Amino acid sequence: MLRGWRAAWAVAARSGCGVGCMRGRWRFSMAKSKFEYVRDFETDDTCLPNCWVVVRLDGRNFHRFSEQHEFKKPNDDRALHLMTKCAQMVMQELEDIAIAYGQSDEYSFVFRKKSRWFKRRASKFMTHVVSQFASSYVFYWKDFFKDQELLYPPGFDGRIVLYPSDQNLKDYLSWRQADCHINNLYNTVFWMLVQRSGLTPMQAQDRLRGTLAGDKNEILFSEFNINYNNEPLMYRKGTVLIWQKINEVITKKVKLPKEAEEKEVEVNRARTKVVPLHCDIIGDQFWEEYPEILAEDS
Amino acid sequence: MLRGWRAAWAVAARSGCGVGCMRGRWRFSMAKSKFEYVRDFETDDTCLPNCWVVVRLDGRNFHRFSEQHEFKKPNDDRALHLMTKCAQMVMQELEDIAIAYGQSDEYSFVFRKKSRWFKRRASKFMTHVVSQFASSYVFYWKDFFKDQELLYPPGFDGRIVLYPSDQNLKDYLSWRQADCHINNLYNTVFWMLVQRSGLTPMQAQDRLRGTLAGDKNEILFSEFNINYNNEPLMYRKGTVLIWQKINEVITKKVKLPKEAEEKEVEVNRARTKVVPLHCDIIGDQFWEEYPEILAEDS
Amino acid sequence: MLRGWRAAWAVAARSGCGVGCMRGRWRFSMAKSKFEYVRDFETDDTCLPNCWVVVRLDGRNFHRFSEQHEFKKPNDDRALHLMTKCAQMVMQELEDIAIAYGQSDEYSFVFRKKSRWFKRRASKFMTHVVSQFASSYVFYWKDFFKDQELLYPPGFDGRIVLYPSDQNLKDYLSWRQADCHINNLYNTVFWMLVQRSGLTPMQAQDRLRGTLAGDKNEILFSEFNINYNNEPLMYRKGTVLIWQKINEVITKKVKLPKEAEEKEVEVNRARTKVVPLHCDIIGDQFWEEYPEILAEDS
Amino acid sequence: MLRGWRAAWAVAARSGCGVGCMRGRWRFSMAKSKFEYVRDFETDDTCLPNCWVVVRLDGRNFHRFSEQHEFKKPNDDRALHLMTKCAQMVMQELEDIAIAYGQSDEYSFVFRKKSRWFKRRASKFMTHVVSQFASSYVFYWKDFFKDQELLYPPGFDGRIVLYPSDQNLKDYLSWRQADCHINNLYNTVFWMLVQRSGLTPMQAQDRLRGTLAGDKNEILFSEFNINYNNEPLMYRKGTVLIWQKINEVITKKVKLPKEAEEKEVEVNRARTKVVPLHCDIIGDQFWEEYPEILAEDS
Repeated sequence: MLRGWRAAWAVAARSGCGVGCMRGRWRFSMAKSKFEYVRDFETDDTCLPNCWVVVRLDGRNFHRFSEQHEFKKPNDDRALHLMTKCAQMVMQELEDIAIAYGQSDEYSFVFRKKSRWFKRRASKFMTHVVSQFASSYVFYWKDFFKDQELLYPPGFDGRIVLYPSDQNLKDYLSWRQADCHINNLYNTVFWMLVQRSGLTPMQAQDRLRGTLAGDKNEILFSEFNINYNNEPLMYRKGTVLIWQKINEVITKKVKLPKEAEEKEVEVNRARTKVVPLHCDIIGDQFWEEYPEILAEDS
Repeated sequence: MLRGWRAAWAVAARSGCGVGCMRGRWRFSMAKSKFEYVRDFETDDTCLPNCWVVVRLDGRNFHRFSEQHEFKKPNDDRALHLMTKCAQMVMQELEDIAIAYGQSDEYSFVFRKKSRWFKRRASKFMTHVVSQFASSYVFYWKDFFKDQELLYPPGFDGRIVLYPSDQNLKDYLSWRQADCHINNLYNTVFWMLVQRSGLTPMQAQDRLRGTLAGDKNEILFSEFNINYNNEPLMYRKGTVLIWQKINEVITKKVKLPKEAEEKEVEVNRARTKVVPLHCDIIGDQFWEEYPEILAEDS
Repeated sequence: MLRGWRAAWAVAARSGCGVGCMRGRWRFSMAKSKFEYVRDFETDDTCLPNCWVVVRLDGRNFHRFSEQHEFKKPNDDRALHLMTKCAQMVMQELEDIAIAYGQSDEYSFVFRKKSRWFKRRASKFMTHVVSQFASSYVFYWKDFFKDQELLYPPGFDGRIVLYPSDQNLKDYLSWRQADCHINNLYNTVFWMLVQRSGLTPMQAQDRLRGTLAGDKNEILFSEFNINYNNEPLMYRKGTVLIWQKINEVITKKVKLPKEAEEKEVEVNRARTKVVPLHCDIIGDQFWEEYPEILAEDS
Repeated sequence: MLRGWRAAWAVAARSGCGVGCMRGRWRFSMAKSKFEYVRDFETDDTCLPNCWVVVRLDGRNFHRFSEQHEFKKPNDDRALHLMTKCAQMVMQELEDIAIAYGQSDEYSFVFRKKSRWFKRRASKFMTHVVSQFASSYVFYWKDFFKDQELLYPPGFDGRIVLYPSDQNLKDYLSWRQADCHINNLYNTVFWMLVQRSGLTPMQAQDRLRGTLAGDKNEILFSEFNINYNNEPLMYRKGTVLIWQKINEVITKKVKLPKEAEEKEVEVNRARTKVVPLHCDIIGDQFWEEYPEILAEDS
């Protein structure tokens, strides 16, 4: 039970958030009016229990956005790192996200099968993810883009998909990573042709029409002396975000009663942190290494 | 047909947004893999045609947020104006929003009955609204809060409701405005009792328990010499956003071929702009004054 | 309050229906077991309030069914009257059906906008309609088909569609009646060509390919001396079922206390009955004549 | 390819089912009218892939129905066998039903996880099940009820639930079988008290209030000399319907070319048949004995 000052503020908090709001049972009993019936038009959008809930977010009109903010082609590290920072915020602020995967201007968030967050309402999952991501994008922009000013607030869209089995979920994430590979290989060659060989974008496009992965690797190697497999993993594999237990050693100042002076003491602290990886998630190895991701009771 | 430079950039634009993305038919034909089947798990969330589509957004944990950012109680003009600025951005950036209504930390956006935006997919409506609102909130924060620093990126949640008839929609908006009135009256008295009479929040809550609107008006008048009806309209009625045709007179510099010097010319330009109002929308008058809001073909 | 024998049987009724069932609060409190959680997987399929709810039913594999039961081509009166009998049963047994429309092997049932029947659950609307229709079809078969034996129990499928406005609903019904007209005109000519002119079905099909309504009318008239407009209304317009107040005069035998003998007395009784019509419902006349069908409070 | 008479009739079949219907591409191209837009109001009700789809059917108002048709209490073999006959018809006529379970006036049908029947549309699953069941109920009534005439066509309702995992499905079926047990034990004692001890239904209800399973077993044993465990399995366990390979020996008359006379030859034929069982499905034994029920590729 709360007492004294804290209790008083708990009451105050319930009595308005300073933009005029007021929550709680009282409000609804009074607001019961002849208009109240409109609440019955809300539909239940509960997600089927015991399924993985995936929310995928995409940048809105990010072609225009990337040009106006002079993103480096084909990959802009600042932009990719900002995306990942926002995704980390989403995982920390929201509940029950087991893993996230991002590439390009998209990020997928996977809520646990057993999650009961907001009664598994689809609209809650979707809107919390995209709004937290969007506000973080603007908030952390300057940490990554420095002097490059943000010209306008960007939009994102989101969708939600359910996957009943672990295999379905793994296949979903594999699909996104395969997509990352295909796009990045294309883009790498395309921009080499434009930036180094001086082709116009249309000429580059024509040159690549109908080519297979092997052809593109060959162009990169023979014309630009690039071994695609040596390209940065972040570009080729995208970014996987998982929770990891981290052992931190913290230095604390402690003053024992008997002693006159403070002493510095080293303390071990186990924390769970969101960690980015740039590894293959299509093969079995990743899932064998991190079995806790799919474990139902974690 | 596009030609020359613009055509070239149109191609370039399709070839990656600089964070590695690549859109278009080509991408999907190549990405067709054994993982592709996971797309079939997406469900169709099309909104029933010929209904008003309302997306209501709410601040997440705005009690905590308002305290940490020292919002003035019971109403903080900076916070209210920032909310409205964000809502205007949403109306301008998205399509087919006929009217919006906001109070406290919530805003409702009404998409037209006939809107075909994104095939009326519920997830698109919801996520575009909340992400645009959230990124705008951080982007425009400093314009309203000046030196008060934004401590962290806030979250918002959203929900979607369909209303088949005009009357249902009007009743929905009336419900929100009635809610505004009830909360604001309560909060006004509550904070007077706390700030002026020195009651603790719990004492103020006890004092107000069971009081009717008349009682609260009486307390305001007899104890604080406040006529509630003279309180600012924005607090009592919330904010209505509608589209209005504005005639602007612009001064242009023109140089006629025959003449040697430039001349300043005044030009009339009709623009459609999002305009805030703080008026009653429960009675008929508002709807009679602005029949175009509900008109199906506007 | 129930007393004596009736009360006893009310209790008995709650105690099992003779195929072992037992309903009521008691049952559920006992059945609460570790399996009970599976009930949470049921989803809410409430229909949006204030919309017309249409359930359309179709015969399953009725080509095969009609051949095996030697339906007369192109229209079999027995089959059409049986369909209408079943639809009448559906309207009488279920609640809140304002109008029904049938043609060929399909029937549409329109539940009132304000209906709260079974909390507007879509699955209830659909399954009650099709199961009542299907059981009635077998039950009343012999009343219409006499010696033609029913060889096997037929199946039906159903779907549900919501219409927000009266105009949408009228357009839905118009769509079905237009469909009736187009199909019946085609079938009428087709079977004349086969039955009277001795064309094979394929020849008849070839003959009609690409013909317009006018062409078909012309063939009927010039080759078979048939004025299509004189064909039976039931074939050309389908069947509309509506509720009508009927004044019946009933002869009752009454024995007054003072008199020794029974007397026959005529009594007027107003009843509401489902009545079939075969009229145009595309134009305004029908709706002007029967305004109570769309009236919300009827 | 079809030829001659059969081809002709295939065309004829497409040209109307004798109640005026006509299917196929042609029909829709012609029916495209200004009313056609109403089709867009249909919503997609596809069931999530890779989930078990359960349709549960319940008799409508079966208390009244059972009394009017004098069902034997607490269990009427005729009624139970008729239910099972109808469920067998449903399994044979529809596709992809792996198992069904029935008790009292309810039956659950389980469609395979991988079923693509009617594109997994929920309305199709539900309406086909209940309509086939309902028409079968009337059709086969006389085979089970003999001289007991069917007074009116009964109704049924249905619902649909998805289960993502095999365990969820097994728990669902266990829930229904546990329900069967609880109800049947209660009903067995209740009707003994009424039929043998002469209690009124209300007295019997009072007597049983608050009793546990053990108490009821004790009453049965001490007062009526009944060992509940010796009651028929069908009453205590309900009915499970599964597919079983049956080897039939058929006697065929064969005339070999060389020989003058026909000979009778015995032929082995493997058929798959729906078979009723009355066994426990809560424990593991059943599922170990019939692994093919849950096998995905069967």
